[in-house]
Amino acid sequence: MQSIRFKEAIRVRANACTGGAMEKEGPIGAYLDEYDETGKFEGETWEESESRMLKKTIECAIKKAGKETKDIDYLFCGDLLRQMTASSFGVKSLQIPVFGVYGACSTMGESLVLASVMLEAGGADCVVAATSSHFATAEKEFRFPLSYGNQRPPCATWTVTGSGAAVLEKGSKESGIYVVAATPGKIVDYGITDKANMGACMAPAAVSTISTHLRDLGLSPDYYDKIVTGDLGVVGSEILLDLLKAEGFDISKQHMDCGLTIYDRNFQDVHSGGSGCGCAAVTLNGYIVQNMREGKWKKVLFVPTGALLSTVSSNEGDTVPGIAHAVAFEWRE
Amino acid sequence: MQSIRFKEAIRVRANACTGGAMEKEGPIGAYLDEYDETGKFEGETWEESESRMLKKTIECAIKKAGKETKDIDYLFCGDLLRQMTASSFGVKSLQIPVFGVYGACSTMGESLVLASVMLEAGGADCVVAATSSHFATAEKEFRFPLSYGNQRPPCATWTVTGSGAAVLEKGSKESGIYVVAATPGKIVDYGITDKANMGACMAPAAVSTISTHLRDLGLSPDYYDKIVTGDLGVVGSEILLDLLKAEGFDISKQHMDCGLTIYDRNFQDVHSGGSGCGCAAVTLNGYIVQNMREGKWKKVLFVPTGALLSTVSSNEGDTVPGIAHAVAFEWRE
Repeated sequence: MQSIRFKEAIRVRANACTGGAMEKEGPIGAYLDEYDETGKFEGETWEESESRMLKKTIECAIKKAGKETKDIDYLFCGDLLRQMTASSFGVKSLQIPVFGVYGACSTMGESLVLASVMLEAGGADCVVAATSSHFATAEKEFRFPLSYGNQRPPCATWTVTGSGAAVLEKGSKESGIYVVAATPGKIVDYGITDKANMGACMAPAAVSTISTHLRDLGLSPDYYDKIVTGDLGVVGSEILLDLLKAEGFDISKQHMDCGLTIYDRNFQDVHSGGSGCGCAAVTLNGYIVQNMREGKWKKVLFVPTGALLSTVSSNEGDTVPGIAHAVAFEWRE
Repeated sequence: MQSIRFKEAIRVRANACTGGAMEKEGPIGAYLDEYDETGKFEGETWEESESRMLKKTIECAIKKAGKETKDIDYLFCGDLLRQMTASSFGVKSLQIPVFGVYGACSTMGESLVLASVMLEAGGADCVVAATSSHFATAEKEFRFPLSYGNQRPPCATWTVTGSGAAVLEKGSKESGIYVVAATPGKIVDYGITDKANMGACMAPAAVSTISTHLRDLGLSPDYYDKIVTGDLGVVGSEILLDLLKAEGFDISKQHMDCGLTIYDRNFQDVHSGGSGCGCAAVTLNGYIVQNMREGKWKKVLFVPTGALLSTVSSNEGDTVPGIAHAVAFEWRE
């Protein structure tokens, strides 16, 4: 079975998220723990800005958990930059043993799965899963430096400047949000080469992971209050619903896409929606967990999606394969 | 405790490794399962070559384990390229759920630790840990395209064209090699900025992980037949032994560095030794496991080291932080 049902009680002890001006002005801006309207977080380069934002988010989550850095056994994190330097430079001074993970924009899902598996294995008592993305570093890494002022097609998405972190611990009997299951994803490649249309590239991977999750655990979509994809945007979300219907699953009532939640497309010029590791991370660690804590949603399937491309692979004419990792959260009284 | 002692019997069922001409001609070339003297593995670009080499290695390991691809529950792998496209494109057609991991040249250690944790958690019966590096892709990613013909200082190392894969399974009572413990590493940064001297950048991380491992588990260095670092080379190995002595551990009798094992520095123009994810991966999955299976070594501590830099971080004047993940192997009758 591709899915894992956790036997241990893996509790989401605390969450934190941060962002920039666009994220603060958006519909879920009120859920940010901290923000910097310049997006700089006092960094001298955009890369340093992203590192500082990630570190601030992790420290905030640890503080909200009533813990100190020394209480964290392991940290699972990654980002979009080459060789994941936003993470390496961001977390090095925390001196927590670290596992670097890469799943492109699905990284919040991958880090949560591996953090939960570590707790299930008994290898740790308390761990942190985190990720980040930054509009300015992502444009430089994947497209052009900001000052070039390139234009983007309507199907393109806007990389979120934001970071999210979750503190997980085991063995608690208190009421709260628990990780109950996970479905690590396979890489799915429908042969799409248009890197400006990442929603279309990633949707088939989300279809694979969501349908496998529901089949593995014998669930129908209405078991969940929300089935949340990461950053499919307008184009990818439509493809997702269509393809899942063809597989026999109608998730149109439960579906929510973080890329369509974090910005208001009527007032913010983000084309098809938000994207980047920070998109799903901010939406999960702010808006979603708050809705669960307020009792609005009891069961949420979180399925962030990643596009596994680089400028080199694109320039060499390769396709854009996708991946999606699912994490099932439940509120327990 | 930073270290993990596994309670489950986590068996190394099979290993495979591949390389190019330099690796075949080197002292441990006879241990390669397959090699391509052109280094191309029938790829049309160097990136495709690395992907094909990685896939071939994983398939070879699965075959040696007497298994099929469908028997593998999860795959843990990563590489040095931006956004880890060597791995994504290499493994996508295998259709195994995949966790992308990044620890620079320590990736074989990180993937082994996480694969073992997954088995310990009961989330899988059989998993694969793998990684790769390629001289031509690494030169392009971190330095210059090969045709530029740049010169390198004597402390520089030569990126191994090679890949290694290990098939791990749980619950076996047969004699064989078992993963018994692991020490995931912290990021250590001594402020070195010379990216041509990666041995010096990474040695302090190996010191941290090895000394923590020995202290956590109450072991002296002579508990192990071999304590194996990844790619410290001549310069880094000397620093390692000196710094560990200052911490009270003399590992000079047990120490072996994969970077000094995979090439013959008298006859091969590799300066300070071999490096890259493939360096530790090929040496472990060929030479080391064979020596354990032949009864020469019973207990081996494998500690690959990674330099967490990118061209962007270097160009912006950042330091080169290091990381090292330790995996303890034991032969059981």
